[in-house]
Amino acid sequence: MAVIGTPPLEPATNTSNDHLVKSDDSQHPANLIPELCAKFWHLGWVTGTGGGASIRQDDLVYLAPSGVQKELMKPEDIYVLSLKAQTDPKQRIYLRSPPSFKPSQCTPLFLAAFNKRNAGCCIHTHSQWAVLITLLLEQSGAETDIFEINNIEQIKGFGRGFQKTGNLGYHDTLRIPVIENTPFEEDLTDSLEAAMDKYPDTYAVLVRRHGIYVWGETVHKAKTQCESLDYLFQLAVEMKKLSLPWLSNIV
Amino acid sequence: MAVIGTPPLEPATNTSNDHLVKSDDSQHPANLIPELCAKFWHLGWVTGTGGGASIRQDDLVYLAPSGVQKELMKPEDIYVLSLKAQTDPKQRIYLRSPPSFKPSQCTPLFLAAFNKRNAGCCIHTHSQWAVLITLLLEQSGAETDIFEINNIEQIKGFGRGFQKTGNLGYHDTLRIPVIENTPFEEDLTDSLEAAMDKYPDTYAVLVRRHGIYVWGETVHKAKTQCESLDYLFQLAVEMKKLSLPWLSNIV
Amino acid sequence: MAVIGTPPLEPATNTSNDHLVKSDDSQHPANLIPELCAKFWHLGWVTGTGGGASIRQDDLVYLAPSGVQKELMKPEDIYVLSLKAQTDPKQRIYLRSPPSFKPSQCTPLFLAAFNKRNAGCCIHTHSQWAVLITLLLEQSGAETDIFEINNIEQIKGFGRGFQKTGNLGYHDTLRIPVIENTPFEEDLTDSLEAAMDKYPDTYAVLVRRHGIYVWGETVHKAKTQCESLDYLFQLAVEMKKLSLPWLSNIV
Amino acid sequence: MAVIGTPPLEPATNTSNDHLVKSDDSQHPANLIPELCAKFWHLGWVTGTGGGASIRQDDLVYLAPSGVQKELMKPEDIYVLSLKAQTDPKQRIYLRSPPSFKPSQCTPLFLAAFNKRNAGCCIHTHSQWAVLITLLLEQSGAETDIFEINNIEQIKGFGRGFQKTGNLGYHDTLRIPVIENTPFEEDLTDSLEAAMDKYPDTYAVLVRRHGIYVWGETVHKAKTQCESLDYLFQLAVEMKKLSLPWLSNIV
Repeated sequence: MAVIGTPPLEPATNTSNDHLVKSDDSQHPANLIPELCAKFWHLGWVTGTGGGASIRQDDLVYLAPSGVQKELMKPEDIYVLSLKAQTDPKQRIYLRSPPSFKPSQCTPLFLAAFNKRNAGCCIHTHSQWAVLITLLLEQSGAETDIFEINNIEQIKGFGRGFQKTGNLGYHDTLRIPVIENTPFEEDLTDSLEAAMDKYPDTYAVLVRRHGIYVWGETVHKAKTQCESLDYLFQLAVEMKKLSLPWLSNIV
Repeated sequence: MAVIGTPPLEPATNTSNDHLVKSDDSQHPANLIPELCAKFWHLGWVTGTGGGASIRQDDLVYLAPSGVQKELMKPEDIYVLSLKAQTDPKQRIYLRSPPSFKPSQCTPLFLAAFNKRNAGCCIHTHSQWAVLITLLLEQSGAETDIFEINNIEQIKGFGRGFQKTGNLGYHDTLRIPVIENTPFEEDLTDSLEAAMDKYPDTYAVLVRRHGIYVWGETVHKAKTQCESLDYLFQLAVEMKKLSLPWLSNIV
Repeated sequence: MAVIGTPPLEPATNTSNDHLVKSDDSQHPANLIPELCAKFWHLGWVTGTGGGASIRQDDLVYLAPSGVQKELMKPEDIYVLSLKAQTDPKQRIYLRSPPSFKPSQCTPLFLAAFNKRNAGCCIHTHSQWAVLITLLLEQSGAETDIFEINNIEQIKGFGRGFQKTGNLGYHDTLRIPVIENTPFEEDLTDSLEAAMDKYPDTYAVLVRRHGIYVWGETVHKAKTQCESLDYLFQLAVEMKKLSLPWLSNIV
Repeated sequence: MAVIGTPPLEPATNTSNDHLVKSDDSQHPANLIPELCAKFWHLGWVTGTGGGASIRQDDLVYLAPSGVQKELMKPEDIYVLSLKAQTDPKQRIYLRSPPSFKPSQCTPLFLAAFNKRNAGCCIHTHSQWAVLITLLLEQSGAETDIFEINNIEQIKGFGRGFQKTGNLGYHDTLRIPVIENTPFEEDLTDSLEAAMDKYPDTYAVLVRRHGIYVWGETVHKAKTQCESLDYLFQLAVEMKKLSLPWLSNIV
């Protein structure tokens, strides 16, 4: 990891640093991302090359490429960049690039989670349950930019918030902000960051008619929070079909 | 198993008894629990570190830790305690503890099944079907603390009750009590035990807006009863969507 | 297969013929049944030890035992009997029995498919879609003892009938009779056989609030017809939710 | 690939060219088709031998046979034909045929995608979501021969059209034509080709009460477009249950 602190001046595409994605350690980000993405594909979260995942380790950020079949990804497909070295928001400098892919349009959104929340992992899914939740909120006509649910045990799967200790309680209301989708995924960055500012404790932002971004301090936390959210979204859709309200007054 | 009868005086965290979780036997509890939990993860029962499982073998109780990704669990993650040695309900004494986890809050609930029913295995899931059943009962406004269904073949998958011989019949009504959830899982213990007293033949207790505890004399029985219950809960939710009643008068 | 023609006089439980379930051939019935049952478990057809499968090869019938976890079955768990040797419908004579199981209550129902239709394989599932279809028919109040659907491509997955050539056409109506459930599975035999007499071309019989029996001349046909039926049952339940009729007048 | 350009004069069934389906390369069509079909079986797309897939490599077309269990297919089950050598639409000439199968009735439909669109892969599924979409359109009574959806991110998974550059945008409306089913699958060819003419940019055609044909320039594109479509069909069915419209006026 001697790379940290030595700002890279390499061109945008670079395969000379292949050692950055080669490791015998199953917990190395370049091994973990393909394993996670394959799991997510089987959960229906990253269908048809949609969605993705990124892991940050100190200053290094590992990213799945754009347009790849997520259940077939390999460590050599991974991009690596240095957080510190990104000075121009319009242009990414990669320490290591795979030869035959394009960088993911999700990159600036993943970086927002790393920069603004010091996250260690960020996951983006196109989960149908997440999309349906945003459509149901839109349909409701009421406050449509926030999903709220309380008094469900699985809510305890979320941390209380950035730099806070402990997890939400059973009676706490989980609030996930919703931002409007844009034709180009990079253009979501501003509204994602605005939602992070407005809801400083959230670990996720829903994107209307699109999906969700979920992060956490570690891969473990990002992944289990993403699972818990998807559980709650599916439950909430079923509750809607059965005329069961998402919020209740149990104390 | 020389440990039985020799009350442990070790401190709460103890990794010196690692031999208790090391075995080449695939049927050893420390091997079975990770295998079961991985299976349950794929069934959606233990999403986002929720839920868990415990096996009792004579006096020894094997427990999954808190907050672990259930599909990734390993034998060395397992806690072991001696039933007899637990004298103080507020403090657990573990014969063997993994180095980097916390004990599960489900522990006193698992122990209730072992102590009060002599169960050999207890499973806790956050199944969405179980949660929806408790919500539908709550919504009905009628008797909300018991789920009842009859005249479905799968009901025959349940034993007639504690210390009784044989299984329920097709025309018998399966009754699963529901208890109210509490902010801290340990605080469910009293109401779980009360439900076990009130329904002495039940092999399961639903927890409102949370999930279910299911047990059996053996791993086989706990696991297959848990499967049968989940089947019935999913069926019952679909029946509700299709306006089909859970109870009928077929003789 | 020298066993054929030599009526067995062994007692009901018999492990001396273990060679009948030992084979290196993956297509041997004792290897196929566990493989099929594991697959069926993952499809939700044989949850909680429910359901099962049987294969006939010439005079020999191979059967899954009662009460076994279907995804964990092994070749040595298989029962074998000779069709010819079964003279007393009340008592089965087994050529080979596993040491620690009980014969399946489905046995006389499987034998009905073998004896009356010369089937090579019979599958019994507790599929929730099958159960819901029988409940929807019961609810309809109209003719409730037959499921009918037409003008769906998957109908072409069924043979035209016993000793007939070719498959059903797209415009043909698939008809699956429904019999009422009984407390003891063996007691279904008479009504199953009556349904087979009344509907001589059917390859399946639904059992109200219970599941389905499906057979075919070969393992391939029984399994693919069972899959096609489950596909149609799930589709029909979804059609019901969306107010789409099962029968239409397309020509 | 010396076969290309040398028109085959072999009889319709031909196993002498077995080298055409034997390769150590996992990306060889004869290896890819079984792998894809097994994956599709687990997705519920090719239940009960329904559906299939074909890959074209230059002039050679590789085809899954008719009536095979799609999760059990092997490279030696694959048919191979030369596109150029097909002069009579009523009779296929195969370079290589498996010994014990029949050619798929889907063959002329796959060839339509190869001939008219220069596709590299064509997939046919019986997806229940696709079938339900065609039933919902039929029920609507309005324009029933086209499925339309817009303002869903996953739409970006589709190319803009034949010989066009780039993909659809978020605000673009995805249009998938629907043709009526016929008793014999080959008879769909004319209407499939007519739909391709009427909708020159579509990569898929729905078949009422039957399923869908999806193609792409490469295996990657055909498969990911098929996944994206199935995602959208499932989403659209759920939207219908929740009274959410498929088309919206977001700009």
